[in-house]
Amino acid sequence: MRPVDIIRRKRDGGELTPAEIDAFVRAAATGEGWATYQLSALLMAVFLRGMTPAETAHLTRAMADSGKVLDLADIPGPKVDKHSTGGVGDKTSLILGPLAAACGVVVPMMSGRGLGHTGGTLDKLESIPGFRVHLREDEFREALRAVGLGMIGQTSDVAPADKTLYALRDVTGTVESVPLITASILSKKLAEGISGLVMDVKAGHGAFMKTPAAARELAESLVRVGTANGLRVSAVLTGMDTPLGRNVGNALEVIESVETLKGNGPPDLTELSVLLAARMVRLAGLAADDAEADRRVRAALSSGAGLEVFRRCVEQQGGDPRALDDYTRLPAAPRTMHVVAPRSGYVSEMTAGAVGVAAMVLGGGRERAEDGVDHAVGVVCRRKPGEPVRAGEAVYEVHYRSTVRLIDALPLLEESFAVADAPPPAPPLVLGEIT
Amino acid sequence: MRPVDIIRRKRDGGELTPAEIDAFVRAAATGEGWATYQLSALLMAVFLRGMTPAETAHLTRAMADSGKVLDLADIPGPKVDKHSTGGVGDKTSLILGPLAAACGVVVPMMSGRGLGHTGGTLDKLESIPGFRVHLREDEFREALRAVGLGMIGQTSDVAPADKTLYALRDVTGTVESVPLITASILSKKLAEGISGLVMDVKAGHGAFMKTPAAARELAESLVRVGTANGLRVSAVLTGMDTPLGRNVGNALEVIESVETLKGNGPPDLTELSVLLAARMVRLAGLAADDAEADRRVRAALSSGAGLEVFRRCVEQQGGDPRALDDYTRLPAAPRTMHVVAPRSGYVSEMTAGAVGVAAMVLGGGRERAEDGVDHAVGVVCRRKPGEPVRAGEAVYEVHYRSTVRLIDALPLLEESFAVADAPPPAPPLVLGEIT
Repeated sequence: MRPVDIIRRKRDGGELTPAEIDAFVRAAATGEGWATYQLSALLMAVFLRGMTPAETAHLTRAMADSGKVLDLADIPGPKVDKHSTGGVGDKTSLILGPLAAACGVVVPMMSGRGLGHTGGTLDKLESIPGFRVHLREDEFREALRAVGLGMIGQTSDVAPADKTLYALRDVTGTVESVPLITASILSKKLAEGISGLVMDVKAGHGAFMKTPAAARELAESLVRVGTANGLRVSAVLTGMDTPLGRNVGNALEVIESVETLKGNGPPDLTELSVLLAARMVRLAGLAADDAEADRRVRAALSSGAGLEVFRRCVEQQGGDPRALDDYTRLPAAPRTMHVVAPRSGYVSEMTAGAVGVAAMVLGGGRERAEDGVDHAVGVVCRRKPGEPVRAGEAVYEVHYRSTVRLIDALPLLEESFAVADAPPPAPPLVLGEIT
Repeated sequence: MRPVDIIRRKRDGGELTPAEIDAFVRAAATGEGWATYQLSALLMAVFLRGMTPAETAHLTRAMADSGKVLDLADIPGPKVDKHSTGGVGDKTSLILGPLAAACGVVVPMMSGRGLGHTGGTLDKLESIPGFRVHLREDEFREALRAVGLGMIGQTSDVAPADKTLYALRDVTGTVESVPLITASILSKKLAEGISGLVMDVKAGHGAFMKTPAAARELAESLVRVGTANGLRVSAVLTGMDTPLGRNVGNALEVIESVETLKGNGPPDLTELSVLLAARMVRLAGLAADDAEADRRVRAALSSGAGLEVFRRCVEQQGGDPRALDDYTRLPAAPRTMHVVAPRSGYVSEMTAGAVGVAAMVLGGGRERAEDGVDHAVGVVCRRKPGEPVRAGEAVYEVHYRSTVRLIDALPLLEESFAVADAPPPAPPLVLGEIT
């Protein structure tokens, strides 16, 4: 079974056998048997020729099995996680994780580092003083037993084949492939030892998938391939034309998450977090239907049980729980300034992508994997689409450290919104669901 | 201009700019700027998305210019070469080169090593004792001045970008791409400093292009791209379902070539060699039309002028000219055996590919570029399709050295022909012409 024959078969639109996929994945994980130029040639052939559901399912399983797969059978309770394809201001993990755990779900959340303009859960959590996202396995298990929730970074032994392929795809123009994205996402989730997974697949200017149709295609692939690999999967399609909530930037998003757990969150963020947490509860088998799951999650929110789980999670992972009540214990940018409305009216649009890139440019996100992040900087949307604003009033409150970076970020923000005479129609938060 | 952006553009079916193609070719030639996994990803994208004629023309020129391009302006006479896409028993170069030179064409023939089952001109020539295919440039120029014909191997400084890409294509399943084949062939021919090129594009079981339609597509691309780069190009489409002539194997093919120059060649080989040589004479401007060119070439054949040029060429390049009269001076295999007809009738088919592979398996060709070849071994087709044969009479005469290799080659030969009651219709030698 020579690499070139496997490449040729896919190139010609054929279906790869499990053994052929295994050979490719093994080579990606170990660096042996295939040259990287052969890996990339197959990636391009897959990009342009696609994969059948059966191929994608096997690729996903093989990539998961290329590394460590957690066995959480000895920890009581149903294990369910959530994954988002990434959005601007998307901090739902920090809210729904505690809410679902408060309802009895065990949430073994392992995340990668954020890259690009959509931020990452690990960076947000690390803005809490002392919070450790790198736990040993025994520490992670202890967190799941004690709190029902652990939020950590993927260890290097998770899906090593994906690490190789992800890096190659980034530099060979083979990122935006539904089968390859599906396998990349799900291989790492399968490694968590979960039985259920809720997917938040975002569509819009600020998301990886720009159109609802593209997001739906990915969502359907994720549900199909997850199911084929024994997961209960539910996917929610959500809009990402405008930032989620008001705060974009690591510490700023922690504050908004805590406020949401306290019941003071903005409606879009609160509703989406509750919805996704309820789906987790249902997939965990802890509610008979969506309505009951919704009631249970709302109860955990209003009782403060979710906030309490988050507090214990922070404590368990070495963070300072006082930061959840005293936000001055979180990193703060030395300077703020306002981007104001040029005229009175209603904010009619606000481009999530531009706000996300602005936050990244300010230092809050990474352009390259090796970059560090500034936890303090970011953007607060003082107005969101549909809200009235008067000329000269702040639309954005910009938290910045470096004036040089601010100068790069400002034009993006100034171009990112519009003011009109009438409020725009309210966009739907949820575009569809696939189960 | 990042490699990934260029790859993405081609991946999405876009047209690359000259600057983008230059960047790719420069990287292939120097090893700098692009990783090999990026080169191969672009090759696969080109394979599946194609290239426009303008892109292919620029790629060809850039690949030629990536290395040394001969300037033969100081050598009097029109410089025209021939290139064949390769066939089994295809020794026309050894015949038409001398014939064209005898008519006044200067033929600066540079060839690559044969690979696979179709053999190579260099290996055939090297079966002549002493023949040197690696001349210094001044020696090559002297041969062209003195004889009008030089037949040498491509030097390492010719089209280095092609060397990298050719090797990569071989192991990444990106060989059979019309734009990439076009650029590979013509870049090396442009480096010869010629003004005209006759292409023999073969179609059939024993050829690289299996169907006349595929061969026509390649021929049209070669003519179009060669013309765009200032060459006069004429392409002849010829059949390659059955071996050309009777002899397959290096020394065996030299003998058949010399016999053809002596006027004793088999009809198919003689006619094709004359036709291609005549096209060279016409492209060189040495005849007003095809009919006059044909007359001139036939005169050079019947007068022995072509044989005389070949003799001088052998001498000029260090070979023993006595071998052209005394074939015992050529390498000979220690053993021969016959593959016989199982019944009486007419040979109804003879699969060129199988005969070619058998000759390679016997040691006459290379499976890998680093293999050596055995000049003595090969196969003589004692019967060709359409010829009568009696049960037990030889169809093939097999010249072999190793019994182990013979055992591998025999089943191929036994399966490669059929005998029927009536002769098959004679296949046309020429399937079409594109100018």
